[in-house]
Amino acid sequence: MMACAPFTQVMSSALALEKTMTIAYFGPEATFTHQAAIRKFGSSLNYSALKTIADVFVEVSKGRADYGVVPIENSTEGVVTHTLDMFVDSDLKIVAQIILPIQQCLMANCSLDEIKKVYSHPQPIAQCRNYLQTRLHHVEIVETSSTTRAAEIASGEKNAAAIAGALAAERYRLNILEKDIQDSSSNATRFFVLGRQCAPATGKDRTSLMLSIAHKVGALHKALSIFSRYKLNMTRIESRPNKRKAWEYFFFVDCDGHHEDEQLGGALNDLQKACNFVKVLGSYPNAE
Amino acid sequence: MMACAPFTQVMSSALALEKTMTIAYFGPEATFTHQAAIRKFGSSLNYSALKTIADVFVEVSKGRADYGVVPIENSTEGVVTHTLDMFVDSDLKIVAQIILPIQQCLMANCSLDEIKKVYSHPQPIAQCRNYLQTRLHHVEIVETSSTTRAAEIASGEKNAAAIAGALAAERYRLNILEKDIQDSSSNATRFFVLGRQCAPATGKDRTSLMLSIAHKVGALHKALSIFSRYKLNMTRIESRPNKRKAWEYFFFVDCDGHHEDEQLGGALNDLQKACNFVKVLGSYPNAE
Repeated sequence: MMACAPFTQVMSSALALEKTMTIAYFGPEATFTHQAAIRKFGSSLNYSALKTIADVFVEVSKGRADYGVVPIENSTEGVVTHTLDMFVDSDLKIVAQIILPIQQCLMANCSLDEIKKVYSHPQPIAQCRNYLQTRLHHVEIVETSSTTRAAEIASGEKNAAAIAGALAAERYRLNILEKDIQDSSSNATRFFVLGRQCAPATGKDRTSLMLSIAHKVGALHKALSIFSRYKLNMTRIESRPNKRKAWEYFFFVDCDGHHEDEQLGGALNDLQKACNFVKVLGSYPNAE
Repeated sequence: MMACAPFTQVMSSALALEKTMTIAYFGPEATFTHQAAIRKFGSSLNYSALKTIADVFVEVSKGRADYGVVPIENSTEGVVTHTLDMFVDSDLKIVAQIILPIQQCLMANCSLDEIKKVYSHPQPIAQCRNYLQTRLHHVEIVETSSTTRAAEIASGEKNAAAIAGALAAERYRLNILEKDIQDSSSNATRFFVLGRQCAPATGKDRTSLMLSIAHKVGALHKALSIFSRYKLNMTRIESRPNKRKAWEYFFFVDCDGHHEDEQLGGALNDLQKACNFVKVLGSYPNAE
């Protein structure tokens, strides 16, 4: 099994040299991914907003960033490149996860009844439709390329508001007039922190694995029987087609435990025999 | 098992009454979802572009649309609401799937060397970065809220181009200067056609199921052993947390076969006993 650098030590020594530590994230600035990164690392480090999830992987791999933050589920920013697919070719490790509730805020430099235009990305507009119809039915809705851009425009225009996350209000000095205005109760979105070395066991960890299995009847069942035999609780499973080999699938599995545990270590040994390919994407503290 | 209306009959009788048939899709107009809908249903029906995937489900459920078209994987339009989650509360059936290669096109009313501005949504801009850097490094890139909006702007402006799908060029009478300009070879995106009645067996079908299983060691393995026992090939599996019951998960499984087949019918009976909850989302011709 792979050797682990003590993440907390890396973190604290990095924090001692605060100025040189860079966190790359899937941008633009002031989005929920940025908010998740700040929640994890604080606001005093160097942050680098990147245009694609692939760019975040590259920056961390090449050492130009110390850690990367990427969403692993859909968010209002509209993730295209599937984060899980990036792990197929990358040796980066998941060193932590961040769970962030998505709260859409109405922000402006005027009061609620002075608003004549509301700017936002089409998705938050759709998510807040009931609110807009009942509270702001008289205003003009203008679509922008991102929530950050919406806040930027609203900050420079009279009688204009934006729908965006709280960080965008801070960034563009807008007042938050109302919080949590999305129609359905807010979903928590999950983000991964990427690093070059894996995190040590804390006693309450989760491990993400990638398996490749031949596309035949019973192959997945056989692989999953190993988790069952070692009494490992699976918390997520997702299949993705292997883009290089037709009829072969990758399975991304999350389970309780650390890959250096005896129990999960044993299961990994058996999985190596049963699967075409097994890769530990990382073990990290279970934040749920 | 559930009774099946003959989809081909429904289709042909609907085609006879062409003017009254309405297809709802996740909009805006001229996006890849719209393109997928036209590929399936032709261009002479009524199309209704809706703002959210939830709206598409509502319009078809209430009979205001005959069929709905929704992406089930990420696309450049940035899907937020996870389509699979919608099936938890819906009785709609998947009656067909559409597989569409995503091809980004450069479109304008001028020639390549006359372009001074390129409009597009941030995601296609990121996807075509190499192309933009090598072929159009001197132009200004302007982000828009959708590729459709980009084409609309480019159609009304001198020396302006847009990056969008081919349908947007047609819709806004722009010339396609270059096709397939995305950096990585194009991914095929999968869409579902939703209807109120399920499709009959064709002999080469796929079935999508939703299972709910207690969150305990071995529960998923036990359920999957049934597919293995009936020699059913699974082509996709995805877990999603049950938002109402903590620690319970929904599993979305695709497998070969039709739910009225003897083989899959038998497996479904066994699954009913092994799971908290089993729902057939639909059986439809396997388009792969």
